[in-house]
Amino acid sequence: MRLRNVKNKDEIMDNSLYLIKNYFDYKGKWNKLFGNDNPIFIEIGMGKGQFIINNAVNNPNINYIGIEKYDSVIAKALQKIPDNLNNLFMIRADALNIDQIFDKEISKLYLNFSDPWPKKRHHLRRLSSNIFLDKYNFIFKTEKNIEMRTDNRDLFTYSLVSFSNHGYIFDQISLDLHHDNMPSITTEYEDKFSNLDMPIYFVNCRKK
Amino acid sequence: MRLRNVKNKDEIMDNSLYLIKNYFDYKGKWNKLFGNDNPIFIEIGMGKGQFIINNAVNNPNINYIGIEKYDSVIAKALQKIPDNLNNLFMIRADALNIDQIFDKEISKLYLNFSDPWPKKRHHLRRLSSNIFLDKYNFIFKTEKNIEMRTDNRDLFTYSLVSFSNHGYIFDQISLDLHHDNMPSITTEYEDKFSNLDMPIYFVNCRKK
Repeated sequence: MRLRNVKNKDEIMDNSLYLIKNYFDYKGKWNKLFGNDNPIFIEIGMGKGQFIINNAVNNPNINYIGIEKYDSVIAKALQKIPDNLNNLFMIRADALNIDQIFDKEISKLYLNFSDPWPKKRHHLRRLSSNIFLDKYNFIFKTEKNIEMRTDNRDLFTYSLVSFSNHGYIFDQISLDLHHDNMPSITTEYEDKFSNLDMPIYFVNCRKK
Repeated sequence: MRLRNVKNKDEIMDNSLYLIKNYFDYKGKWNKLFGNDNPIFIEIGMGKGQFIINNAVNNPNINYIGIEKYDSVIAKALQKIPDNLNNLFMIRADALNIDQIFDKEISKLYLNFSDPWPKKRHHLRRLSSNIFLDKYNFIFKTEKNIEMRTDNRDLFTYSLVSFSNHGYIFDQISLDLHHDNMPSITTEYEDKFSNLDMPIYFVNCRKK
């Protein structure tokens, strides 16, 4: 997600206790930062953070880490974190480094409204491409579990084929999440597209 | 597919050389009936036969067997077979007996616009349920290959989850077959729904 420049973004990022700058240092020991052994769920490309913040508020026994590439976007997300939330951190990082940030410690990965990279020659940049699925292999604790939401039909079918060929098995699929009565915490994108009555595609898949 | 009664259906069925009545006798030796070892593709629930007949006409090196449960429907299909087609037969049978009809000799199974059995308590009647997938295990020669088309969203997502949990891996998925530029021979249903601009869902999947 790109966003217009946030003027005081450096100040927000410098002052937030929720932004972990030296994130490479916690590889394999994020549980120490959280101070407990609760499962850790991450979202790559969390945008302005609505989804992961609301999940953290509603699930105090799960630890969350939101990952976002753009300064202005993560600054917005940091501003929205309510006081005294102790099960959420955020990091400004590129997903390409994900296997340098985590080591066998993640229980669930959310990919919400990822960049579809519509051009065929860019397909390996999609967060569900083989490039990334290979990296995700290293971050999961035991069973691998990915949950994806998107409004982009081509990204969705590409991802289903990619997940399947990488050994993932599908638990749940919806081609119209909000009409299929599968209530969940929504992202900013989701609210927008859902209000326009555009279908949201959803898949939850696992790999041993 | 149900159809209004075809008056002379018994006569049509009795007189057609393309309808195999003693189909249990050919289990494991359908290649002898065709007189060659070309791959055998079958369609369960072929309806009025447009899809399988056109496939047979266009692919003389593949053998086809169309399966349909209803007399009136299969009578319609039999009437549409052009003269001198030697790579197509039809059988009036219930899919529940499929593992009594074939034995390790099928290369591809088509499921086109199958009855969606929308009620949850009927889900095992769907041709992509575990009940049927277990039976299909016995009919395939080497690799298992199923291709499904449907206009029914719920049947489609149910089938993707079912195929995946049964070990099938997805080659191709489309949520709008005709707009995704994947031309193929169409079924009667497909023409109807496509003309109404309703999306046709498509999946091609394989299992070792």
